[in-house]
Amino acid sequence: MSSGDMGSGFGSVLHANGLEVYTVLAGRSDFTRLRAREAGFTDAADFDELVQRIDLFISVLVPSEALQLARDIAAAMKRTGATPAYADLNAIAPQTGLEIEGIVRAAGANFIDGGIIGGPPREGYSPHIGVSGPDVAIMESLRDRALNVEVIGPKIGQASGLKMVYAAGTKGTTALWTEILSASRALGLEDALRERLGENNPVYTYAQRSIPGMPNRARRWVGEMEEIAKTFEGLGMTPNILQGAADMYTLVGETPLADLTSRDPNPALEEVLEAVVQRLKD
Amino acid sequence: MSSGDMGSGFGSVLHANGLEVYTVLAGRSDFTRLRAREAGFTDAADFDELVQRIDLFISVLVPSEALQLARDIAAAMKRTGATPAYADLNAIAPQTGLEIEGIVRAAGANFIDGGIIGGPPREGYSPHIGVSGPDVAIMESLRDRALNVEVIGPKIGQASGLKMVYAAGTKGTTALWTEILSASRALGLEDALRERLGENNPVYTYAQRSIPGMPNRARRWVGEMEEIAKTFEGLGMTPNILQGAADMYTLVGETPLADLTSRDPNPALEEVLEAVVQRLKD
Repeated sequence: MSSGDMGSGFGSVLHANGLEVYTVLAGRSDFTRLRAREAGFTDAADFDELVQRIDLFISVLVPSEALQLARDIAAAMKRTGATPAYADLNAIAPQTGLEIEGIVRAAGANFIDGGIIGGPPREGYSPHIGVSGPDVAIMESLRDRALNVEVIGPKIGQASGLKMVYAAGTKGTTALWTEILSASRALGLEDALRERLGENNPVYTYAQRSIPGMPNRARRWVGEMEEIAKTFEGLGMTPNILQGAADMYTLVGETPLADLTSRDPNPALEEVLEAVVQRLKD
Repeated sequence: MSSGDMGSGFGSVLHANGLEVYTVLAGRSDFTRLRAREAGFTDAADFDELVQRIDLFISVLVPSEALQLARDIAAAMKRTGATPAYADLNAIAPQTGLEIEGIVRAAGANFIDGGIIGGPPREGYSPHIGVSGPDVAIMESLRDRALNVEVIGPKIGQASGLKMVYAAGTKGTTALWTEILSASRALGLEDALRERLGENNPVYTYAQRSIPGMPNRARRWVGEMEEIAKTFEGLGMTPNILQGAADMYTLVGETPLADLTSRDPNPALEEVLEAVVQRLKD
């Protein structure tokens, strides 16, 4: 797995619960190396060594890199003959999951589809980890290691599909309302809109709560929105709403607020809207 | 004005409150003629006669026809020299409002921008009618005729802009969630998604309430979504989210549920989702 926020969260919880956790740090930044060391990860020299040491490979990274990682790991499996189970927990479309399944199975390994709903695991907290596929037993065994694993169904694509529709509901709604509220600010209609919507409008209330925590994650969310667009398109529906959500997160990603880290306090709603309006004027 | 649901609602309330209401019925359906007669409208032979009889022209029709109607009325004004005030209350982008203003002012008449939030006026009820522009006095005078007219600001585009951002919030959210819940049904993930969202999720609750009343209006909403897309694009933001909302309403408009009328009871949420899923299979 990668050792970003989510990957290092998984690794440190699994390590704290008695498992040996491997990663490959060659070529990674000093910060990533430090975080991996703090999380108790063992550094394998390369993917060939990695696949020979492990029983389960967990892929947790940005969706745009999920397919290439599967290709690299499958190549290592073929070179070494080692075939650990491969679980993909990334925010990817069911079609992407099926594509990865094909790559992994061709290397002779069991494939498990998955999706994470919630933040990185830490002591006392696990996100919801949905898994699906014909043989998910090894992921289920991680319930004994403090991870909240739930079986969604027997088919590859179900767990990633659940992640897609869930994230469309949360991040899609946030993207739409970021656009609406930024437009109302640009048009000088914020007060008039607030009055029309009413103070207790449930969706407006949700948007006011969700937007401030978004800018520092906006860039990462672009690829996820594109995977949801692909999910909908695969079902015969329009990709445009979620492609537009990707566009909005690209736009927010171009504002200075996107440089905040998860350790900084969230900006106020008005600061986010003002940053968008300023970006539009540039 | 037209004599659709909204136009006949305006006309009947204004007629019931002591004003003479004119329309042009030549070429309209028997149903429209009947409704216009019931509402107490006086039938003018053509636009030339119409503009000579009235003090205020109110344009209420589908957004795609707003521009052409303005051209036709402006031509009648030029032919006859009669220049009644022209109020456009349609769901149009501020840019479209400015374009119509140019056409109307070139004919010598006062132009008033407007937007309707809510359903057709009837006895005891008026929607919110926002108006903007340098001279909106004649629309304000309709407060004495049981219409809830509010001045949004001095500029053309403000009242239509408010309608756009408001409708993006309501109909845009409904379109997004129609896609999400249809996808979850198509993927067999309805129960899993419901469990993840929780029974009290405010946006999910809003969607469950709003979707059943949508199918019989879906076809009419397509043009409105396109005008909102144009509004956002004019501000430098993505048109894609709302273009996707137009796509979703086009899709729902292709289901049998779109043939329901406003007099039929609303279908259940599950019926709407099932109709979409069936349409995707066709």
